[in-house]
Amino acid sequence: MKSPEEIVNQLMMKNDAFSQWLGIQVLEIKHGYCKLQMQVRKEMLNGFHIAHGGITYSLADSALAFASNSHGYKAVSVETSISHTEALKEGDIIRAEAEELHRSNKIGVYQVNIYTMPDKKIVALFKGTVYITSQLW
Amino acid sequence: MKSPEEIVNQLMMKNDAFSQWLGIQVLEIKHGYCKLQMQVRKEMLNGFHIAHGGITYSLADSALAFASNSHGYKAVSVETSISHTEALKEGDIIRAEAEELHRSNKIGVYQVNIYTMPDKKIVALFKGTVYITSQLW
Amino acid sequence: MKSPEEIVNQLMMKNDAFSQWLGIQVLEIKHGYCKLQMQVRKEMLNGFHIAHGGITYSLADSALAFASNSHGYKAVSVETSISHTEALKEGDIIRAEAEELHRSNKIGVYQVNIYTMPDKKIVALFKGTVYITSQLW
Amino acid sequence: MKSPEEIVNQLMMKNDAFSQWLGIQVLEIKHGYCKLQMQVRKEMLNGFHIAHGGITYSLADSALAFASNSHGYKAVSVETSISHTEALKEGDIIRAEAEELHRSNKIGVYQVNIYTMPDKKIVALFKGTVYITSQLW
Repeated sequence: MKSPEEIVNQLMMKNDAFSQWLGIQVLEIKHGYCKLQMQVRKEMLNGFHIAHGGITYSLADSALAFASNSHGYKAVSVETSISHTEALKEGDIIRAEAEELHRSNKIGVYQVNIYTMPDKKIVALFKGTVYITSQLW
Repeated sequence: MKSPEEIVNQLMMKNDAFSQWLGIQVLEIKHGYCKLQMQVRKEMLNGFHIAHGGITYSLADSALAFASNSHGYKAVSVETSISHTEALKEGDIIRAEAEELHRSNKIGVYQVNIYTMPDKKIVALFKGTVYITSQLW
Repeated sequence: MKSPEEIVNQLMMKNDAFSQWLGIQVLEIKHGYCKLQMQVRKEMLNGFHIAHGGITYSLADSALAFASNSHGYKAVSVETSISHTEALKEGDIIRAEAEELHRSNKIGVYQVNIYTMPDKKIVALFKGTVYITSQLW
Repeated sequence: MKSPEEIVNQLMMKNDAFSQWLGIQVLEIKHGYCKLQMQVRKEMLNGFHIAHGGITYSLADSALAFASNSHGYKAVSVETSISHTEALKEGDIIRAEAEELHRSNKIGVYQVNIYTMPDKKIVALFKGTVYITSQLW
């Protein structure tokens, strides 16, 4: 069975264009867990000069994909929810930390917290549910 | 009180960089409702050559913002959820249609369906809850 | 394959104690759809003399179970969400109407609206996602 | 300003009929936090002889109400979601522990974990968002 690092390398392979556009870096990956980082750029802002809600969602959704696929079986998102609790501005560095709340044979549930660095202020709370297939990576 | 069109113009003003990057077009806007369209580009794909989940979320979140602000009072998202039901590939044209399910003095609930064009196949189901402030646009 | 009516009969069989306590009646059932009704009783109220949020959730959750199992395969709930939009008082008659928004091989998504009778005022909006097993009823 | 205990006493006053029917006990309450306990009874089971999803939702929803009102201002639920991760049978003792993930002037977000006792196995994961009014208890 492939390691979490090998799987994320495959998921983040050269042609993962959107994660590259976002500038996502993988800081840590292990079974059921990952920590990602990125920086808010000017192109990610909305008309209020704060990050569009889709930016933090995208980072959290990538974290969900990495954490839920890390066990070696392909997993697909079935339902995700996010609360945006603080606004982000250009230059802010944010981290997503995904943690496995539950994993059965078929279903996994993950909590992803997004916070700023270095002050670790929570800016978004994300929960994701995945369906775990029987296909190996 | 400003019209829905005037409010969306303000929301989508020249400096709304991320909506411009996404290529979002406003097809229709009225009180509590809007219809948006965009096309999936190569930069929006993940490592599987399908659109990243953050792309449809971003479109839906913009539709939520437009529909919930259209009554003239500033509204802020408090909780959103999305189910991705079908994969999207480069070149696909998608629409988001936001509908008001409930609106009280302080809280609004919106359903946003995302579907492909011209075949109108549902690709994502989004629900958003907003807090309605007393600030006029 | 069993009919939707036969499946609901099995789900609602004599020993479904909680649905009986709630007083749930099945008004209509077909593939991917059902309509249920019940009346708010004194024992269902909280300290504010309005129905506890768990009452409308329970009705909606039963509607999800009936609608998602109606195709003949056993389905289990994986994630549900509800917004309570209006308060209910003793004696109110409420209906739950479940509609299938999406159904693939493995995953189904259902919208359940709860409204009062006879004025059809929406009191709760529920969305449920199920995992569809390969086990026949 | 009233203490968390005084507020819960008011919320759980003699006429909170449904919490009494459920048999909810308050084990601990402080600002933004509470711990509740109850036991699954025969009347709470569905046709599969496991607890109806509405039972754990009801316990979690009560925990949300207590934790979010504990600061002294009246708070109302705007959106809640729950994943049922394990089945419960007659006689099982369950606890709900509510924790405040975020609280601004107007909006609060709470995580409620439901687990069995004494083995602390997670059976349901609940997230609730409330609107905080300016009304004092």
